[in-house]
Amino acid sequence: MRFVRYGDRGSELPGLLDDDDRIRDLSEHLSSQTSEYLDPDRLAAAGRLDPASLPLVAEGVRLCKPVRRIGKIVGVGPNYHDAAAQAGFKVNPEPTLFLKAATAACGPNDRIELPKLATRVDWGVELAVVIGRTAKYVSVEEAMRHVAGFTLANDVTERSFQLQRGGQWSKGKSHDTFAPLGPWLVTPDAIGDHDAIDLWLDVNGERQQSASTAGMIFKVPYLISYISRFMRLEPGDIILTGTPGGVGLSYDPPRFLKAGDRVTVGGTGLGSQSSLCVAV
Amino acid sequence: MRFVRYGDRGSELPGLLDDDDRIRDLSEHLSSQTSEYLDPDRLAAAGRLDPASLPLVAEGVRLCKPVRRIGKIVGVGPNYHDAAAQAGFKVNPEPTLFLKAATAACGPNDRIELPKLATRVDWGVELAVVIGRTAKYVSVEEAMRHVAGFTLANDVTERSFQLQRGGQWSKGKSHDTFAPLGPWLVTPDAIGDHDAIDLWLDVNGERQQSASTAGMIFKVPYLISYISRFMRLEPGDIILTGTPGGVGLSYDPPRFLKAGDRVTVGGTGLGSQSSLCVAV
Repeated sequence: MRFVRYGDRGSELPGLLDDDDRIRDLSEHLSSQTSEYLDPDRLAAAGRLDPASLPLVAEGVRLCKPVRRIGKIVGVGPNYHDAAAQAGFKVNPEPTLFLKAATAACGPNDRIELPKLATRVDWGVELAVVIGRTAKYVSVEEAMRHVAGFTLANDVTERSFQLQRGGQWSKGKSHDTFAPLGPWLVTPDAIGDHDAIDLWLDVNGERQQSASTAGMIFKVPYLISYISRFMRLEPGDIILTGTPGGVGLSYDPPRFLKAGDRVTVGGTGLGSQSSLCVAV
Repeated sequence: MRFVRYGDRGSELPGLLDDDDRIRDLSEHLSSQTSEYLDPDRLAAAGRLDPASLPLVAEGVRLCKPVRRIGKIVGVGPNYHDAAAQAGFKVNPEPTLFLKAATAACGPNDRIELPKLATRVDWGVELAVVIGRTAKYVSVEEAMRHVAGFTLANDVTERSFQLQRGGQWSKGKSHDTFAPLGPWLVTPDAIGDHDAIDLWLDVNGERQQSASTAGMIFKVPYLISYISRFMRLEPGDIILTGTPGGVGLSYDPPRFLKAGDRVTVGGTGLGSQSSLCVAV
């Protein structure tokens, strides 16, 4: 099943997509105000409803990030063989983790703010995992039981803030709107093989990234298990599983976003995002 | 005024301390379920209540972290001249920032978990700032208007997870219970000069850290202003302002926490914490 949250800021409602990609209103059956609705059993119950029995939502409604209250966003450092090679990283024996402020999250078609003094704002299409059940010291085998679903993410980064301002990556990862998420929360049964999703990203219609999640160094179940050794994962937490090759920093000369640019992002079975870049 | 949250897990109530350090129940006047109560105006209004008019709470009640729903915890890298010198860091021209998972927060007297495979769990007494109003691109001069109050923190870190596991510090900063906070939320007017607070930390009664916040490299208003350029600060967010010299890693040989150790932490006007270390 594919779930959405739709509506204006402050009055978002839950919905699901029917087979014709039309939004059906779920607000009589589910509240998305707290993260409890992300429990896989609740989502499965909602998925058993007949979409035709649910009110049709008018077209053209705003789509929101698929999780209202994100606890934390855990990012994974170079996690595609091609990206690691382009960045000149050697592959670590274990994942590099960073945290991105949850306040960076925004809807899939919201504007991306270019921060004041920013000169090197970069993109990165990613498969994002939405946690649905608390996970602490979970095994690789049990990991997928803790997943509510998958969504599309753009891990936006200001490279000079990340790398040249005295420290840790979070400084360049956390500006408002640096984590467009959505449009859909796709349950694991609906996504099929999460290890064979084609991801792509265009800037102003020009393809910059194109890769399959098959190129991941560390796979989703391993990442969940690994992260859960270092911090508790809770419903509403997001894991950004890393971006493939083709980020702006990897080009010679590097390419960065400027006001007026439009970034479009997509993934097989995950829908697409379209974000206009604006100066803050 | 000094505010507290007290009671068993899941049923915490707001209170304030009277002049005899007794807890008075505030639940008729204030809800601490959301972060709205951290608005400085609301806290000021609660502070004008006559403590004698409020129900006295039985002694011996559990004290909780002073903020129920922490959005994010922003840490500041070496921010005391003595600590930077001990760590062999040169002073950066601007603060090093990191994020610590909010799920690491716990009450001031809760147990500190030593993670599985942990061998180098370290301590660090800190002055913590609790944000009360949203801050984005705020000036140094306006910064303190966004503060709900101050509290005491222990920035617990697993040094090998932080430094020797392929990456960013968050991995060693974010385990459950790695951020004991409290006991009190002390409003800026009640703390007096936040740049002259004596902080101390003992392990099993032996003094390890003892310093004044006067030794900070980057001061509180500057930190708030600086962080707000890189990420939005919201009510319920916490800034850990750095730890002075005397962390376990700075000793030769280094000293780390083991099961059964008791860490006590205190600060002028901020009360004290007492945490027993236990294997997870």
